[in-house]
Amino acid sequence: MKVDGKQMRPIWFDETSQTVRVIDQRQLPHRLVIAELTTVDKVITAIQAMYVRGAPLIGATGAYGVYVAALNTLVSSGDEVFFLKECDRIKSARPTAVNLAWAVDKVLTDVSQKEAIADKVAAAKVAAARITEQEAENCRQIGLAGLGLVKSHSEAKNGNTVHILTHCNAGWLACVEYGTATAPIYAAFDKGIDVHVWVDETRPLNQGARLTAWELGKHGIKHTIVTDNAGGHLMQHGMVDMVIVGTDRNTRTGDVANKIGTYLKALAARDNDIPFYVALPSSTFDWQASDGLKDIPIEERDPDEVRYVQGDHAGSLRKVLISPTDSLAANPAFDVTPARLVTGLITERGICRADETDILRLFPEFKNENM
Amino acid sequence: MKVDGKQMRPIWFDETSQTVRVIDQRQLPHRLVIAELTTVDKVITAIQAMYVRGAPLIGATGAYGVYVAALNTLVSSGDEVFFLKECDRIKSARPTAVNLAWAVDKVLTDVSQKEAIADKVAAAKVAAARITEQEAENCRQIGLAGLGLVKSHSEAKNGNTVHILTHCNAGWLACVEYGTATAPIYAAFDKGIDVHVWVDETRPLNQGARLTAWELGKHGIKHTIVTDNAGGHLMQHGMVDMVIVGTDRNTRTGDVANKIGTYLKALAARDNDIPFYVALPSSTFDWQASDGLKDIPIEERDPDEVRYVQGDHAGSLRKVLISPTDSLAANPAFDVTPARLVTGLITERGICRADETDILRLFPEFKNENM
Repeated sequence: MKVDGKQMRPIWFDETSQTVRVIDQRQLPHRLVIAELTTVDKVITAIQAMYVRGAPLIGATGAYGVYVAALNTLVSSGDEVFFLKECDRIKSARPTAVNLAWAVDKVLTDVSQKEAIADKVAAAKVAAARITEQEAENCRQIGLAGLGLVKSHSEAKNGNTVHILTHCNAGWLACVEYGTATAPIYAAFDKGIDVHVWVDETRPLNQGARLTAWELGKHGIKHTIVTDNAGGHLMQHGMVDMVIVGTDRNTRTGDVANKIGTYLKALAARDNDIPFYVALPSSTFDWQASDGLKDIPIEERDPDEVRYVQGDHAGSLRKVLISPTDSLAANPAFDVTPARLVTGLITERGICRADETDILRLFPEFKNENM
Repeated sequence: MKVDGKQMRPIWFDETSQTVRVIDQRQLPHRLVIAELTTVDKVITAIQAMYVRGAPLIGATGAYGVYVAALNTLVSSGDEVFFLKECDRIKSARPTAVNLAWAVDKVLTDVSQKEAIADKVAAAKVAAARITEQEAENCRQIGLAGLGLVKSHSEAKNGNTVHILTHCNAGWLACVEYGTATAPIYAAFDKGIDVHVWVDETRPLNQGARLTAWELGKHGIKHTIVTDNAGGHLMQHGMVDMVIVGTDRNTRTGDVANKIGTYLKALAARDNDIPFYVALPSSTFDWQASDGLKDIPIEERDPDEVRYVQGDHAGSLRKVLISPTDSLAANPAFDVTPARLVTGLITERGICRADETDILRLFPEFKNENM
């Protein structure tokens, strides 16, 4: 997507330096800093410390991580056992997004089909690039699938502004290109539909206020940041036409594990008869999971993410303590929105209801995946 | 209440200096700073900039504001018209809390019954002190009324920890003493009941993370700060036994205008069958209001409260920008929780359902107040 007129992705292979590069999203919107992922430790740090975040991007980073691991183990020592151990470390860097293990395994399958070490390394690079392109293409398709929903609202409002609320960042920064939740918004904007986005701040790490606001602004889309507390009030007063969010892991039955607080917005949408959509590529389905509350592990992150807030002070990034020094904090990173609160899922194959029958109508090849 | 072993209130008349003093709550929990309210402008600044906040404390400050106005107008010039204008300015310093206008009017009634200026000034001071004491006593009674609820949970759990979630600060810092939402918690703690409080951070101004955490910690009550996003997740996982919040204005029909985000917690409590209580002194009822969403004005505050976060950095208070410099923000300060989501109201006269009949059972003298 465009950043100050330049085409950009959150992850890419830099041909000149022959390295994997990512945007260090921790420093946005204040600084645009690029990090080189030259070792497995750097890959894991990038995932855990959230240089990269968002299910599809975590997957793409994991995929490129296998390539980095191959370079650093197979090429230097030929030790295949160590290589697989390093890949396991990458797989378990974060627990909630299902794309991470999925992408690592997918690259490993291709790698295992080659004999020579150079071929394995090459296969890893090709597979990682393919997964990355596929995520971008999936998001493009999600945009096309969701465009009709935004268009309907626009038509029903005689072309007046369609107000869309989103939580966290399920934009191109999370997803290679277009984003998931934002894909229908970008698609609608590019078609000339008048859209305005309510951007949930998304504490503790403020991915909404920092990242969604930044990427929407760079693309020229009208948006307003609100605290995570405000969405219910906006909905009560008719100021939200639809909600679109992403997801980090989705059960085959339509339960949605997404950034903490998503569930609260789904409840408010239901209470105010506002459609609540979840946009996701099929790679975000966990076909083994049927009960979101029971089957999806919820990551508990560092309490200091709650106790401190990072931002810009006079040109420098600063962390400020917002709580008493001796107060405890808890930091569950995701919650589960039950399928009953979800109006529909927007996927790369179209829109379906959030139930197993309709999901499998779009993805019949996964019918027996949970056996 | 106790602060480092010293008895303290958020507002008091200092006999030595003969001035009205308040804690400047903007600087908590990092610094305990006292401000002197010697002019009407200072009173209004203290209310608007939120040195003081919380419906009962805003009321008490407004009441003492009449005394300050009397000193600065009647005593110096004897100009009664100007005095009443100054009182009107105080009344309209903030729009949502009904206690402000109520308290100013109550003091003015006493003032108007005196002839001599010295008597008027004295009457204002006495009336302000009486209102302040009455708020403290109301909160003590709210604590006694709510104690039974906490006790029931404790008994049902065989004495195991009762987990109570609260939003914003409806503690003694908001209410002279004991607090409203916190009064049953302090009462239970003082009776030796094992309680733990989930403290919602409460963006944008973080009154939960800053003030509720501070005052609970100073009193020795176990508490954990969570983001405003987390409450639904905690409730889904059985980690919350009850919710108690305060209110800035309550309709006679039981609708609750409280800090933005309260409505979302009420929805989550309902979805998880968790009792949701609202604690309030009768001064917080707006007996003229029957429909919370229509009748209660919601204050829109400065968007920079959303765009910036204040905290401590290396011993200094700093504001950091969390959003892109050119992104807009909106900042509605309150929302309305419909009575249908409220399990009960905890008042100084006992507990009632959130409906007009049961509210008027406790407060029959207001039966005809909306005519």
